[in-house]
Amino acid sequence: MHGMTSRDAPILECIPNFSEGRDLRIVDAIVDAIAGVPGVLLLRRESDEDHNRSVITFAGQPDAVVQAAVAGVAAAVDRIDLTRHKGAHPRMGAADVVPFVPIRGLTMDDAVAHARSAAERIWSELRVPVYLYEASALRPDHINLADLRRGQFEAIRESIATDAHRAPDIGGLSVHPAAGITAVGARKPLIAWNVLLDTSDVSIAKRIAREVRGSSGGLPTVKALGFAIPSKGYVQVSMNLTDYSTTPMHVAFEAVRRAADGAGVTILGTELIGLVPQDAIAATAGHYFGIREFSIERVLEPRIDSVDRTA
Amino acid sequence: MHGMTSRDAPILECIPNFSEGRDLRIVDAIVDAIAGVPGVLLLRRESDEDHNRSVITFAGQPDAVVQAAVAGVAAAVDRIDLTRHKGAHPRMGAADVVPFVPIRGLTMDDAVAHARSAAERIWSELRVPVYLYEASALRPDHINLADLRRGQFEAIRESIATDAHRAPDIGGLSVHPAAGITAVGARKPLIAWNVLLDTSDVSIAKRIAREVRGSSGGLPTVKALGFAIPSKGYVQVSMNLTDYSTTPMHVAFEAVRRAADGAGVTILGTELIGLVPQDAIAATAGHYFGIREFSIERVLEPRIDSVDRTA
Repeated sequence: MHGMTSRDAPILECIPNFSEGRDLRIVDAIVDAIAGVPGVLLLRRESDEDHNRSVITFAGQPDAVVQAAVAGVAAAVDRIDLTRHKGAHPRMGAADVVPFVPIRGLTMDDAVAHARSAAERIWSELRVPVYLYEASALRPDHINLADLRRGQFEAIRESIATDAHRAPDIGGLSVHPAAGITAVGARKPLIAWNVLLDTSDVSIAKRIAREVRGSSGGLPTVKALGFAIPSKGYVQVSMNLTDYSTTPMHVAFEAVRRAADGAGVTILGTELIGLVPQDAIAATAGHYFGIREFSIERVLEPRIDSVDRTA
Repeated sequence: MHGMTSRDAPILECIPNFSEGRDLRIVDAIVDAIAGVPGVLLLRRESDEDHNRSVITFAGQPDAVVQAAVAGVAAAVDRIDLTRHKGAHPRMGAADVVPFVPIRGLTMDDAVAHARSAAERIWSELRVPVYLYEASALRPDHINLADLRRGQFEAIRESIATDAHRAPDIGGLSVHPAAGITAVGARKPLIAWNVLLDTSDVSIAKRIAREVRGSSGGLPTVKALGFAIPSKGYVQVSMNLTDYSTTPMHVAFEAVRRAADGAGVTILGTELIGLVPQDAIAATAGHYFGIREFSIERVLEPRIDSVDRTA
C-alpha cells in the first residue's frame, strides 16, 4: 500500500491527445504502452467518438513520464493513419498534442526541458517532426497551438516545405506520411471543458464559442470552438481555460450561459476532459457561496498535505 | 522538507471549541499547548469575538492528536472561568466540545476509542467531567450535542446531580467549578458554516435557522441557529452540515437563500469555520456547472494521491 512516489518527489503530468476515438483496441494499445512504464500513474483515459480523439492523463516521476509519452506516441504512430482519419476536432498528428505540466517540485523550466527531451526522441526514434509550443516554443509564431494547427494535417503536409511558419522546430521539412506532425509543449494546468447545448444547430455553438473566446475579444485565456455531436443530437461549446486564475470557471460558464439564454437554448450539462485542478474547484465554491477569505488552504485534505510537507 | 507523516500513516483530526474568543493571550496559550506536541499538524485557528469562542483545527498521528487535545483542554481549564463567560454561542465547558474525526487509515471505531481515551484523561487528570457524544455516546440521549448543552453551563451545574439525563458519562456528579463539563466525541467530518444576512434583526436569522434545520422539519442532517453579530451589525444563520452526502452544501445554501429572499434580506456572504472536506467542494462545482460523471476522482491532486496510494 505504499505509494510509488514519496510525498515530496517531483511530479510531472502529461496529457497527450491521440487522433483515434473509435477503435478502442488502438486506444488500449496506446494506454498499455503508457501505463506499462514503471513510475507512471495512469490517471484517466477518455475517447470521444464524434471528435474521433482520445485523451490520456498520466503523471509520475518526470523521466518515467517522458519515457511513457514517447512510448504512447510510438504506439500511435504504429497504428493511426491520419490520411484516413475523420473527426470533428482539428488534428495534425496521430499523436496530435503532447503537453507536459509541472505538478509538484518542478519549475516550468524543468517541464520545458522534459518536453524538449520527449520531442527530440519523437523525431529521432519515430521520425515524426515536432512543433514546440507554449512555454517550450522556440519562436513566437509557434506558441499558440491553434496557429500551428490551422488547416490541419492536410494543409501542413502541403506547405511544410515552402511556408517558413510551417517548418517544424525539430525534424525535417516533411510530415510523417501517416502520423503527420506532433506538437509537444510545456504549459500550466488547463481546464478542458465542454458545455452541451440542447440544439442540433452547430451554428449556435460556433457563435457562442466566438463570443466567449479571447482571440475574438471575449474572455482572456479562454479558447473555444463549437462542435456538432451528431451521435448525441446536441452541440457543444468546447473550451480550454488556459489560465483559470485569470478567467475562473464560473466566469466562463456564466458567459456561455448568458449567451445560450440569449439564443434561447438550454444547457444540458458540462463535461470535463481529463482532470481539473483542485484550486479551480475551490474557487468555484468560493464564488457561488460567497465564502469569505476562502482558498485551497481552507480545504481539509490539501491543507493537511501542505502543512505536513512543510513540517 | 519530508513530511512528518508517511503517505499512508493514519491521520486523526480534532477540532476542539474553547469558550474564549476575546482574550487572544489565552487562545495563544491553548494553541501553543496543542501545536507543541510532536506529530501534530496545526491546520487552523479562529476566534470569534461575538460568539466569544475559538475553534482550533489540528490533525496528525492519532496518539499525538489525543495528547494534544488533552493538553489543549488543560490549558483552557487553567485559564477560562465559565462563571464569567458571556457570548452569543451556547456553551457548557471551558473546553466546550472536543470532536475527533477519522481522516485516513482509521475507522470510526478507532476514532471512538481515541475519543474515549481523551475523555478518560480529561476527567482523571483535569477533574472535568465528560459527556461522550455522537459516535462515542454510551446512551441514546447523549448522542446529540444540542440535547446535552440545553440550558448551558448554568443549567447543567444546577441539575447535574439530580437529573439523570444530565449525569456525565465519565466523572462525578458535579461540574468543574470554573471549567464546567466537556463533550468529547467521534464523528464524521462536518461543515460549520455561517451565512451572513444584511440586517440587524436577529429574529430573521432565528426564523431562517428554524426553517432549514432538520430538527424542526427542515433539511436532514442540518443543524442551524440564528445569532446576532453586534460587532459587525449583521446577523448570521450558523449551520452545521453533519452529513453533506445527505444534504450537500448547495442544498443548504439555496434553502437559506430562498428563505432570505422571502424575508427581503440580502446575503452578505458566508464564513466557513475550520476546514471543509474536498469532496463537499467538488460536489459544489459538480452541481453549479452540471458536470457529468463528476466526483473527487476527476480532481487532479486527489486523483494523483489516490492512484499513487494504490500503486
